[in-house]
Amino acid sequence: MQQKEIRLPKFERGFHLITDLIERELTTLPKIGLVNILIKHTSAAIIINENADYSVRVDFESFVNKLVPENFQGFTHIFEGDDDMPAHIKASIFGQTLTIPITNGKLNLGTWQGIYLCEFRNNGGARRLVLTVYE
Amino acid sequence: MQQKEIRLPKFERGFHLITDLIERELTTLPKIGLVNILIKHTSAAIIINENADYSVRVDFESFVNKLVPENFQGFTHIFEGDDDMPAHIKASIFGQTLTIPITNGKLNLGTWQGIYLCEFRNNGGARRLVLTVYE
Amino acid sequence: MQQKEIRLPKFERGFHLITDLIERELTTLPKIGLVNILIKHTSAAIIINENADYSVRVDFESFVNKLVPENFQGFTHIFEGDDDMPAHIKASIFGQTLTIPITNGKLNLGTWQGIYLCEFRNNGGARRLVLTVYE
Repeated sequence: MQQKEIRLPKFERGFHLITDLIERELTTLPKIGLVNILIKHTSAAIIINENADYSVRVDFESFVNKLVPENFQGFTHIFEGDDDMPAHIKASIFGQTLTIPITNGKLNLGTWQGIYLCEFRNNGGARRLVLTVYE
Repeated sequence: MQQKEIRLPKFERGFHLITDLIERELTTLPKIGLVNILIKHTSAAIIINENADYSVRVDFESFVNKLVPENFQGFTHIFEGDDDMPAHIKASIFGQTLTIPITNGKLNLGTWQGIYLCEFRNNGGARRLVLTVYE
Repeated sequence: MQQKEIRLPKFERGFHLITDLIERELTTLPKIGLVNILIKHTSAAIIINENADYSVRVDFESFVNKLVPENFQGFTHIFEGDDDMPAHIKASIFGQTLTIPITNGKLNLGTWQGIYLCEFRNNGGARRLVLTVYE
């Protein structure tokens, strides 16, 4: 089993394709295996979605802001900013961990699948991931 | 580690119990292990939910169509049909990958747990899964 | 690979930090590895979120009750109580399985990350988990 911890560049709030960034860190993959990715934060998520059209990522951001609005009257955890409590909820709706198969030494994703970083804070900073490869 | 890629039959839009279909593909399971399932698409999901009552699956479909409506005014990615962008969002809310324990050579799910294919497109076609078993 | 099935204490409806309970069950962890957690139920979930401030867990409960309301007119699966069908949907939005890296013999979570039991029923009882550790 191989494991490494990496720090992503800082991304702005929104949905960002990071498949290439991840693959660049996984230099020697087994012929068959699995890779586990954990994002070590509670206001960002890692998902799989469409890798081709930028408008999909734009629409994700518009929609999640309507799904989990910053002005929800019930929030009491508000001292870290209006974007904080919605970011926690979005993070758990979308999830912080993925396990993806490796086949013939490559991530075995579908043709249209890519890995997204979902940055839910206005200033989330550089996010840390743990990558674990097992064969 | 064993791995295989399978193609499900075509299902109509909605939530469908596929536990038996998955188990039929996993003929020789270890005594203790894990199975990882990835659906290689961005407009369908794989979840665990109630395996007995058909009405649960019907209500899932009614509710997700209200949660992520096809007429959301903010969508710009609309050229693949009204059902396309909502399908992408539903897919990431529910998730494309599961890792399930194996105990005594069988999937160790709860009594009432089954595996659902969530088909979010009107014509999604035959979906592909990667099954990876490790012990 | 080590595996054990545990029963949590009964928790009331809401979001509950159970990191310590899980760690207490995982006495001999490998230097590098992964732990998979499955909750064997369809009306509760296991997520990662903020481990410090109780108000975050309170706000989760307020918000999910608005997101998946008990009075949604479309529900037909209503004979097990008003909280039943919403609990099934919440369970699959948040998820029943997590896979978390182990580093230096410990769960490698972020500083602010903890494991939550999400209890969506009014009387969910003592929930069962399967813990599987592989190295």
